[in-house]
Amino acid sequence: MILLDGKTTSQQIKEEIKETVSKMKSHGEKVPHLAAVLVGNDGASLTYVGSKVRSCEYVGFDSTLIRLDENISEEALLEQIDTLNKDNALDGYIVQLPLPKHINEEKILLAIDPKKDVDGFHPANFGRMALELDAFIPATPYGIMQLLERYNVPTSGKHCVVVGRSHIVGRPISILMSQKGAAGNATVTVAHSRTENLADLTRQADIIVMALGIPEYLTADMVKEGAAIIDVGITRVEDDKHPKGYVIKGDVAYDEVAQKASYITPVPGGVGPMTIAMLLKNTLLARQWNK
Amino acid sequence: MILLDGKTTSQQIKEEIKETVSKMKSHGEKVPHLAAVLVGNDGASLTYVGSKVRSCEYVGFDSTLIRLDENISEEALLEQIDTLNKDNALDGYIVQLPLPKHINEEKILLAIDPKKDVDGFHPANFGRMALELDAFIPATPYGIMQLLERYNVPTSGKHCVVVGRSHIVGRPISILMSQKGAAGNATVTVAHSRTENLADLTRQADIIVMALGIPEYLTADMVKEGAAIIDVGITRVEDDKHPKGYVIKGDVAYDEVAQKASYITPVPGGVGPMTIAMLLKNTLLARQWNK
Repeated sequence: MILLDGKTTSQQIKEEIKETVSKMKSHGEKVPHLAAVLVGNDGASLTYVGSKVRSCEYVGFDSTLIRLDENISEEALLEQIDTLNKDNALDGYIVQLPLPKHINEEKILLAIDPKKDVDGFHPANFGRMALELDAFIPATPYGIMQLLERYNVPTSGKHCVVVGRSHIVGRPISILMSQKGAAGNATVTVAHSRTENLADLTRQADIIVMALGIPEYLTADMVKEGAAIIDVGITRVEDDKHPKGYVIKGDVAYDEVAQKASYITPVPGGVGPMTIAMLLKNTLLARQWNK
Repeated sequence: MILLDGKTTSQQIKEEIKETVSKMKSHGEKVPHLAAVLVGNDGASLTYVGSKVRSCEYVGFDSTLIRLDENISEEALLEQIDTLNKDNALDGYIVQLPLPKHINEEKILLAIDPKKDVDGFHPANFGRMALELDAFIPATPYGIMQLLERYNVPTSGKHCVVVGRSHIVGRPISILMSQKGAAGNATVTVAHSRTENLADLTRQADIIVMALGIPEYLTADMVKEGAAIIDVGITRVEDDKHPKGYVIKGDVAYDEVAQKASYITPVPGGVGPMTIAMLLKNTLLARQWNK
């Protein structure tokens, strides 16, 4: 069994980006510049955004953190988005989710210039990805593709079952893996809450991508000997024995499934750490494409 | 076995649109206006475009046919596109494909304003469809969804195998059938040229959508008793016995597969006739959304 180590792989990608940026600097070129918009004071959001900003600094990007009041109106936020769209110094930006309830998230995401949408949430980017044009791919599926590719997990002609049909994980990864190209050419099935006889499907799969959000849902009896397992789940489960009062669980019953798997992502340390690396990669691409 | 009759169903949809347009007229509202751009003199293209224009007239739409010289430059065609994008009298338009070889088709399709892209080929529309926002859905998958819905073919929780991953049929129909909503909630597998053991997959399927372009590829031994069969294939096969010198074949060996099927589309007269009806439907939607 080979561990798909997201911590090491994401670090490797960051080093590659750092090297590219260093070359850009030495050639007197502008380095990538990422901005992050944070509305309000949510603790988890502060942590995520802080980590993104620190990663920018690490690889040598310019970064800007824009903090806005919890009570900002939707109109004022849209004006801010418009300013960012027009700011030529900026290659890409993200709006940290969730937004306060009085703001229509969809309206905000649709207002972002697709050319600066390094989160890849805008429909124009989704469509470009699906139609095999240059596009910003959302960080989680992009990170999974990198893990599959860098560990040479066989995908061509293989049957992959994706459990979950979300806009930012299940749907895009199912499309990417079934397209031509690296980590592609798989025969992909999308399963979801309405699927009948899920276990009959997963037992046939050469690759399983779990993106359901139910802790330890995939058990060993649902998995074929030698399958590759990608676990996107990340749920806090209460645990009094743990100093934090909780533990992080994936969608896979890791200990038992790992016994049968050819490849498996741990949780934490698998898909999770890849996301910031892929956000940086998208920002680098934004710089290169907008030149 | 129930025949999914595209000829009758498309006629029914046209009558519904005709009635809506007649009400619009009686309320003094502007009726939908479709334009079609035809470059050159290709016989098949002339036939298709002519049929689209006649269908517009039938349902009471305004229509405009713009014929351009075979030798028009890409730049001049882009100028024409720009004019159509700015023409407020126009609700939607199509550029008949294929275009002459000296013109970059992708560049032309990307220049069409997504709000007027009633063919649904622009990535912005594809992305909106995939992310479950209002969108123009390409005519062929839209037509298939209508057939499934109007004949009440069970899809929720059922396993659908789509054979073919093209941008305008296989990919979009696989997404639509796996989304929530009418004719949706299916567990969908996308198979293609690289798929190993295709027959093992199709034999499990409750619904099979064939969009491969290989005449009579799907044979009875590949189909489960009681499966629903959608045939998107439409290939001219030489036949000296036929006065035209050819016959139209689908991807399904109809005579033998029909024996086992619960529902089946004939070729011709199944999916084919639905496409013009859905183009009209998209043009009606364009009028309603742009109001």
